[in-house]
Amino acid sequence: MVVVPAPELHPGVAVLAPLLGIWAGEGSGEYPTIEPFGYTEEVAFGHTGKPFLAYVQRTHAADDGRTLHMETGYLRVPAPNRIEWILAHPTGITEIQEGPLTVDGDTLQMDLTSTAIGRAESAKEVTAVGRSIRLSGDVLTYTLAMAAVRQPLQHHLSAVLRRVTA
Amino acid sequence: MVVVPAPELHPGVAVLAPLLGIWAGEGSGEYPTIEPFGYTEEVAFGHTGKPFLAYVQRTHAADDGRTLHMETGYLRVPAPNRIEWILAHPTGITEIQEGPLTVDGDTLQMDLTSTAIGRAESAKEVTAVGRSIRLSGDVLTYTLAMAAVRQPLQHHLSAVLRRVTA
Repeated sequence: MVVVPAPELHPGVAVLAPLLGIWAGEGSGEYPTIEPFGYTEEVAFGHTGKPFLAYVQRTHAADDGRTLHMETGYLRVPAPNRIEWILAHPTGITEIQEGPLTVDGDTLQMDLTSTAIGRAESAKEVTAVGRSIRLSGDVLTYTLAMAAVRQPLQHHLSAVLRRVTA
Repeated sequence: MVVVPAPELHPGVAVLAPLLGIWAGEGSGEYPTIEPFGYTEEVAFGHTGKPFLAYVQRTHAADDGRTLHMETGYLRVPAPNRIEWILAHPTGITEIQEGPLTVDGDTLQMDLTSTAIGRAESAKEVTAVGRSIRLSGDVLTYTLAMAAVRQPLQHHLSAVLRRVTA
């Protein structure tokens, strides 16, 4: 049997080490065009030894457990205190998210703004997304604001996740 | 023990059923700005019962096995004979790819053109990508053309993959 050691985390993303692993928790969503809803969420961050993290996310409805949303992509640290999220959605949308990354003790804070949104012809009209993500110890919280279907940028989602595995 | 049955494939993507599973093979790349190179590749297509497939891909250098590229995203069938690929790359790039999907017996052909490319501030300049993908029985072949770093759209990658698991 050949044992392949796990690669070491690339020093370029060492600041993101506290994100690595699996997270789970609950969130709530609202938007002027829909009924408010609750959801459960699982998030995983992994790496391959290259200077980025891989990210995958999935939510289920709190009421009946049906799958609601998925997204996937990568996190990059192009410069100290800068973070980029490169995302694809099965709704036909892509996001480039960029912004400051701040570290204070065991707290990481990312304040992201969409610098590019890609939309397939069949996708809903999403024009801007803002994401604020805060990791403090074993708790990961986020809020997401969205401008879509002719509505201005406004609060859409918030969730609190806890670390399941490192 | 609770046995959770695998969800049935959504009828909206039934035409993509032959893609489901894991594929592996070899490819070669060239571009005016780099030395030609060979690579091995693994590709997986999965689903969750919703009307899209999830896609993940990874390549390694043929010479020393180092990780070369990854990409991930989703496939959509917005109308009969139309296909959309929604992609994120750890290089800081997103792609919306759209085009015709044709089926002839056990052959699927997809001819995709990038309708939107997203680029993080730190990403290389990629301005267009074309992908031609052909599945015939247990063989998946593709070619990829790219316009990047001020070069016109031209051939960049070709690969032949074989089905590993359905």
